[in-house]
Amino acid sequence: MKLYDSRRAPNPRRVRWFMAEKGIDDIEIVDVDIFGGQHRTPEYLARAGLPNVPALEMGNGQTITESVAICRYLESVYPTPNLFGEEACEAAVIEMWSRRAEMMVATPLMMLVRHTHPALAAIETQVPEIAAANRAMAEKGLKMLDRRLAESEFIAEDRVTMADILAITAIDFARMARFRPDPDLVHVRRWREAMLARPAASAGV
Amino acid sequence: MKLYDSRRAPNPRRVRWFMAEKGIDDIEIVDVDIFGGQHRTPEYLARAGLPNVPALEMGNGQTITESVAICRYLESVYPTPNLFGEEACEAAVIEMWSRRAEMMVATPLMMLVRHTHPALAAIETQVPEIAAANRAMAEKGLKMLDRRLAESEFIAEDRVTMADILAITAIDFARMARFRPDPDLVHVRRWREAMLARPAASAGV
Repeated sequence: MKLYDSRRAPNPRRVRWFMAEKGIDDIEIVDVDIFGGQHRTPEYLARAGLPNVPALEMGNGQTITESVAICRYLESVYPTPNLFGEEACEAAVIEMWSRRAEMMVATPLMMLVRHTHPALAAIETQVPEIAAANRAMAEKGLKMLDRRLAESEFIAEDRVTMADILAITAIDFARMARFRPDPDLVHVRRWREAMLARPAASAGV
Repeated sequence: MKLYDSRRAPNPRRVRWFMAEKGIDDIEIVDVDIFGGQHRTPEYLARAGLPNVPALEMGNGQTITESVAICRYLESVYPTPNLFGEEACEAAVIEMWSRRAEMMVATPLMMLVRHTHPALAAIETQVPEIAAANRAMAEKGLKMLDRRLAESEFIAEDRVTMADILAITAIDFARMARFRPDPDLVHVRRWREAMLARPAASAGV
């Protein structure tokens, strides 16, 4: 297998964090120079279909994009420790929290960075109204997470799962927009410090 | 099991369409009056955690929200016909296309409706710039789908999968914003007509 990776982008970090939690170290890493436009070359597009990073060449030779699809495939090849859930009810709860973490926190934070960071003005028509709406959405999502983390050590279960990886990589990325979770969200603060203290936090940054 | 459902919203339709493709007819359907605020009552919130519909009471008595998490759980209980993929590589390809369909087409179209339809002004601060950006994103996503559907009968595979359900329910919902895919996208048109001709198209509308 081969992972097409890029150090400076948030979606590749999800996969690198996921691999580090599992101790996966036998996949070849290929660095893609996205600032140099390497993800838009005919060679890359023929392989990945879209100019997106990360991409994974799977065991059967086919290449896929989409960080969550890549992680779920890796889970099937490297099942331990389990990060998507084992039996069906547990997997459903983890998927529910993963989607809440992604749609209510991670996506709004990534949109906030895209619509405010000066370096991204070259690739995005930055709209202040979109930045403001996403900031408000992320703040609301973080309050929801704080209520959850008052009753649960991690987001979906009493152990790290995909839901935590989706949330923490976006929260950490949002520092680029000078965004930090409200320090009054004490449960988010406790969880954020615990996540960033994990060895996997330094993978892919 | 019990499905908490609402006829007029797009996310419940994903689950009803999914159930119809599988011929699932032994789950109790409970109608939730979202216009009457029934999803915000203490009883509903104690069960579902968030004021979201649909919700599913699973076999173990626990209730989850998030349409895709609900569908994936149902797949484990009713595996045939398979809509998320069977072996790991196929499942990864279907998840990749499901995420592309959701993030590049379905979510932008739902945001377009939220930010333009007069009936939704009561629940959403409608921002013309957000509507315009989402319309542009959906149009770009539909061009991507058209290229894909030039080479594949359905979005992910040569049969209907979750990816098709995610795309068609949003495209059909976007009629509320008087949005129709550009008729020059002939492959999208062929696929859209085929999807809307399926018996499952009338489930949950």
